[in-house]
Amino acid sequence: MNAAGDVVALTQALIARPSVTPDDAGCQDLIADRLAAAGFRIERLDQGEVRNVWAEHGDGGDVLVFLGHTDVVPPGPRADWRSDPFEPTLRDGVLYGRGAADMKGSVAAFVVALEQFVAAHPQHPGTIALLLTSDEEGDAIDGVRYVAERFRREGRRIDFCITGEPSSKQRLGDLLRVGRRGTLTGSLVVHGIQGHVAYPEKARNPIHALAPALAELCARQWDDGYPEFPPTSFQVSNLTAGTGAGNVIPGRCELVCNFRYNPGWTAPALEAEVVAVLARHGLQYDLRWHRGGEPFLTGEGRLRVAARAALTELCGGSPEENTGGGTSDARFIAPLGAEVVELGPINASIHKVDEHIALAELERLPALYRAVAERLLLA
Amino acid sequence: MNAAGDVVALTQALIARPSVTPDDAGCQDLIADRLAAAGFRIERLDQGEVRNVWAEHGDGGDVLVFLGHTDVVPPGPRADWRSDPFEPTLRDGVLYGRGAADMKGSVAAFVVALEQFVAAHPQHPGTIALLLTSDEEGDAIDGVRYVAERFRREGRRIDFCITGEPSSKQRLGDLLRVGRRGTLTGSLVVHGIQGHVAYPEKARNPIHALAPALAELCARQWDDGYPEFPPTSFQVSNLTAGTGAGNVIPGRCELVCNFRYNPGWTAPALEAEVVAVLARHGLQYDLRWHRGGEPFLTGEGRLRVAARAALTELCGGSPEENTGGGTSDARFIAPLGAEVVELGPINASIHKVDEHIALAELERLPALYRAVAERLLLA
Repeated sequence: MNAAGDVVALTQALIARPSVTPDDAGCQDLIADRLAAAGFRIERLDQGEVRNVWAEHGDGGDVLVFLGHTDVVPPGPRADWRSDPFEPTLRDGVLYGRGAADMKGSVAAFVVALEQFVAAHPQHPGTIALLLTSDEEGDAIDGVRYVAERFRREGRRIDFCITGEPSSKQRLGDLLRVGRRGTLTGSLVVHGIQGHVAYPEKARNPIHALAPALAELCARQWDDGYPEFPPTSFQVSNLTAGTGAGNVIPGRCELVCNFRYNPGWTAPALEAEVVAVLARHGLQYDLRWHRGGEPFLTGEGRLRVAARAALTELCGGSPEENTGGGTSDARFIAPLGAEVVELGPINASIHKVDEHIALAELERLPALYRAVAERLLLA
Repeated sequence: MNAAGDVVALTQALIARPSVTPDDAGCQDLIADRLAAAGFRIERLDQGEVRNVWAEHGDGGDVLVFLGHTDVVPPGPRADWRSDPFEPTLRDGVLYGRGAADMKGSVAAFVVALEQFVAAHPQHPGTIALLLTSDEEGDAIDGVRYVAERFRREGRRIDFCITGEPSSKQRLGDLLRVGRRGTLTGSLVVHGIQGHVAYPEKARNPIHALAPALAELCARQWDDGYPEFPPTSFQVSNLTAGTGAGNVIPGRCELVCNFRYNPGWTAPALEAEVVAVLARHGLQYDLRWHRGGEPFLTGEGRLRVAARAALTELCGGSPEENTGGGTSDARFIAPLGAEVVELGPINASIHKVDEHIALAELERLPALYRAVAERLLLA
């Protein structure tokens, strides 16, 4: 099979395994067997019900890792799809199936690129590796977060990390993600005293207590941005109070909010700002925080230069470079001191029905990943 | 049977009929049969699934009506009660059962008072009547609201109305309710645009849009009160937004609010104030209003004088007179031009488990209602 056919066949084999997060459904075994046959050392890093695998080739020197996940988001009702989400289906040069773009196509391309790289450069300097988890779309606790903590504890180094998250917008390689905002989620419960609306003096309405604090938090401009980052944003995602009855003042009000923040802030600093507002308005409350990931920025360095050059050469133009979008497992690798970029296929269909990747796009991915690796390790 | 035993027995017979709103469960038939036997003319005013009955004695002159309801609120789980809520149970001089205080005790006392009144004064001047509904605790649409509209259409007059709602606080007759605030409920839906919290610029958060308007409405002092009325109050009873997911900006936010307002306001005036706030903040919204009842005040007049005198004579002290509390069917009778007061037993146990009325209290109610009637019609 030629390389192009190989990446398509492997993507199809992965799609056929219904690995709804955190189920790996045998994807990692398939890949580990192939890479072991290519001379890679395989290390299982499973934790809880999550499967993680590390495959590496070479010794010492710079460590470059391709980072991916084998889990996918649930497909929703079968009837909403034109074809079964777990039956890879080709129509008009496009491959359909859950995970086609996020990110089984990238993972298959990593495998083919790694096989080609070590076949072409069996004595390459440095270390080249693949890290896969089955917990990127879910809780993201026992996946790369766990592996990164373990690496830190064991003093293992990662210098460069390329994750295959679907970063492209209109054409393959038109965008290189060079950082991510931080994410911080707060779960607030405001305590009041339940009562009858006819006797407000005997109750304390937690909605009324919260209202001015909420207005202040929603109106605030947190900053004007940061080099290569958009402004920090605060969003309330859920707000619930009331018994359903129209004549009862509720006893509590619950709110969930999320910050996406640039490196001008830290999670503790944002938390302190919120607490100060709540305190100033005299609220009685409980507040829990989930720190989903600190922001990171990969500045101008060897990885960014190599990725930009490969994209410019192979994808028909220099990419836009930014730090937009959601979160990815890259946020756990960056704090190890690694340069990190995100580089993958077009993201228009991800997390939707009829997720797909064009064969013309998929078939070009292995060469792109291989080109970045060669520029980094062989230069 | 003496009068004291009679009112207790009738209350027990009513409690034994499980008339959870809007079910009458035969209560009105029992009462109508008794009053027909005492010489009352019976008129059925049923509407939809709601039972209403009008019983009157005498002709022309001043029309005094006792107003009550035979329906009760649901008892909740049987296990929460010490004895079955629909098995009237005597313990230590107290009668337990759903409706004992709200308001089958008052209804039984009305019946006994009316029987005594017409027996003692068969040729009394004026008209004395009883109006019962089975829809006071429920929607309150096909009950007294319907009867009042019908009376207005037919040109039928009511001059004085005494409702037996449990108004007393610590001892029977310590409070005479001489009016009620109005009640107005708003159901607001604020429209936004759903999106991912990572891309706030592509969404419009309806919580954020609402927040400043909500803060303004909650902070506002609507007035400083009105003679014999507390200040108008605004309360948000329910507030809901969000998909449950922490990373989704919701597409809509729903709010239910309620005004309890004094005669310084009308429902349309309050509605206009809210609309002005929403408009000033540029909200996109839908808003529905339910006008639950305009405020009313029974000023110093023959009914209030008669009730005060009877309470002072029979209950050991002049009553507090106010307009507090929730709503009752009296709000539908007052607009007919009637003087209206609320006068009934202690309300501490209403709408709760182990609802009850002390026999010592229940046995004194018929004489109290009869005394007011005699002061009004025979004076």
